[in-house]
Amino acid sequence: MSDIVVSSRVRLARNYDDLPFRSKITREQSEECVQRTLDALRPLPQAYSFYPLRDMEANEKRALMEAHLISPDLMEHEDTGAVLIRADEKIAVMMNEEDHLRIQGFSLGDNLTEAAENAFSIDDVLQEQLSFAFDHQLGYLTACPTNAGTGLRASVMLHLPLLTQAKQMGKMNQLAAKLGLTLRGIYGEGSEAQGNLYQLSNQVTLGKTEKEIIDAVAATARQMAEMENVYRGKALDKDEIGFQDQLYRSYGLLTHARRMPVKEFMNHWSNLRLGASMKVLPVTTALCDELLTLAQPAHIQNAAKTILNEKDQDAFRSALIRGKLNGGT
Amino acid sequence: MSDIVVSSRVRLARNYDDLPFRSKITREQSEECVQRTLDALRPLPQAYSFYPLRDMEANEKRALMEAHLISPDLMEHEDTGAVLIRADEKIAVMMNEEDHLRIQGFSLGDNLTEAAENAFSIDDVLQEQLSFAFDHQLGYLTACPTNAGTGLRASVMLHLPLLTQAKQMGKMNQLAAKLGLTLRGIYGEGSEAQGNLYQLSNQVTLGKTEKEIIDAVAATARQMAEMENVYRGKALDKDEIGFQDQLYRSYGLLTHARRMPVKEFMNHWSNLRLGASMKVLPVTTALCDELLTLAQPAHIQNAAKTILNEKDQDAFRSALIRGKLNGGT
Repeated sequence: MSDIVVSSRVRLARNYDDLPFRSKITREQSEECVQRTLDALRPLPQAYSFYPLRDMEANEKRALMEAHLISPDLMEHEDTGAVLIRADEKIAVMMNEEDHLRIQGFSLGDNLTEAAENAFSIDDVLQEQLSFAFDHQLGYLTACPTNAGTGLRASVMLHLPLLTQAKQMGKMNQLAAKLGLTLRGIYGEGSEAQGNLYQLSNQVTLGKTEKEIIDAVAATARQMAEMENVYRGKALDKDEIGFQDQLYRSYGLLTHARRMPVKEFMNHWSNLRLGASMKVLPVTTALCDELLTLAQPAHIQNAAKTILNEKDQDAFRSALIRGKLNGGT
Repeated sequence: MSDIVVSSRVRLARNYDDLPFRSKITREQSEECVQRTLDALRPLPQAYSFYPLRDMEANEKRALMEAHLISPDLMEHEDTGAVLIRADEKIAVMMNEEDHLRIQGFSLGDNLTEAAENAFSIDDVLQEQLSFAFDHQLGYLTACPTNAGTGLRASVMLHLPLLTQAKQMGKMNQLAAKLGLTLRGIYGEGSEAQGNLYQLSNQVTLGKTEKEIIDAVAATARQMAEMENVYRGKALDKDEIGFQDQLYRSYGLLTHARRMPVKEFMNHWSNLRLGASMKVLPVTTALCDELLTLAQPAHIQNAAKTILNEKDQDAFRSALIRGKLNGGT
């Protein structure tokens, strides 16, 4: 089950009560937002790295986005946006995104509880020292009213190749919508479901407790994972060799091709992870998940330490994949 | 060069002068044709196997055709057709084909001389004891006038993937035609050029000596092989990694797929042999050539020792290929 839920994430939207929301904020006030956040979090015992976006290469920023540590929205606030990331990448605090703060907690697999603990550990430290915009009726106030209330978005990344193949994703979307949740591609709203990866999260943050939101997302994720498992079993029963054939062909191409475009990679990656999850292929899901991020374009450019044209990127990517897959399981 | 010329073959058309040609021959006379041939060849020291077509399963006959030991034409003369095959498969004497006898000599690689020696060694033994239809002006007389004269057809099997990819086969056809030769797919007239394999042979057998015919086919084969080599060099110069990518992808699929349809196999086989020939892939051309025959449908059915449906054939084929490719180089 936790094989199908790839990762869990909780983000909290917070705004300082003495600074204007994004639409009215001045540059000085944006800098004050960053400064006070850093000062308040300085006493934290773990190692953190601070990245002000304006000092970064385009590629470094894209790599953080590929790792889901920053949002596409933060990318658009290059002059004032910044992020503080814990060394283990389980916590990322974005500053001057749509809200003053977007506190993100992460966890591997099906573990929204741990992701929430990570996010709230930061929220707690900040609340001891600073004051957020809060209304006793509405809860936390946010730049966009849809985020008001708990300010919490719980999301899980689901790998649903068999439900996708069986054209069941329309039904999954309906199921999510009925429960006030939403299903999207892995890089947020409007992005394609590359690699048969979907992000399930709550739409509304108002009128429910944090626990209710997290429980609803977790329960629905488990329900979808169960359905995915049913279809996996059906596929095996119906044509086991055909199923193995599909998985092994992707494995054969990933371990042998000399150029691997990212779009093609995402298709084979889905079979690779399915094969790992079902113990058909000699590879672990952990390695698949590592590869998913490492093979993305900005990560490839960074690893190559030089600007590559597309063909050379594809060659570098294929070498990296072969190294990882032949090296370890 | 001999990498590109996969194999060489010489066949001699002969008819006994006291028996009518195929259109007028009785069943008894056809049996007499077989009997006298067997009697005359009985003293040969090497081991031979005799196959009367009427006693054979459809699949056994097809397997002999896949190995080029009998012709499609012989398959159509099921009641009287027969073949005598030397244990090393370098000689096959077909009886009651279009002509009374079609004596075939084979050789691996670029070696029409050895193929001719093999065929003439049988012709010599028969001529010492029996008399063939022969005219001092026309030479050997045959059922179809196009085979009269020497009765000799020299043919080589060429692997021309780069000339095919570069759409040069039209030109090669013209070159062949200009020299009185013809280019065809590997299973004779009208067959597709599966696996980028072509059979180059002489059209006319009259008005030239045996040596002239053999030399013309051999020289033209070498010319085409040289052109193929030029295009291989060009492909490497233009995009070496792209070229390797193409070869390794086929290798990865052949060593990993769990079902391999024969048509798909032929495409990957072409890349496999190209990779072997250019020492890019860890496989020998000899193994490729062995696999080419073993993976054909009737060979798969025979190896499985049971009637398989198409999907099971494809699974059996993929297991055989993986065994051969992982086992030895």
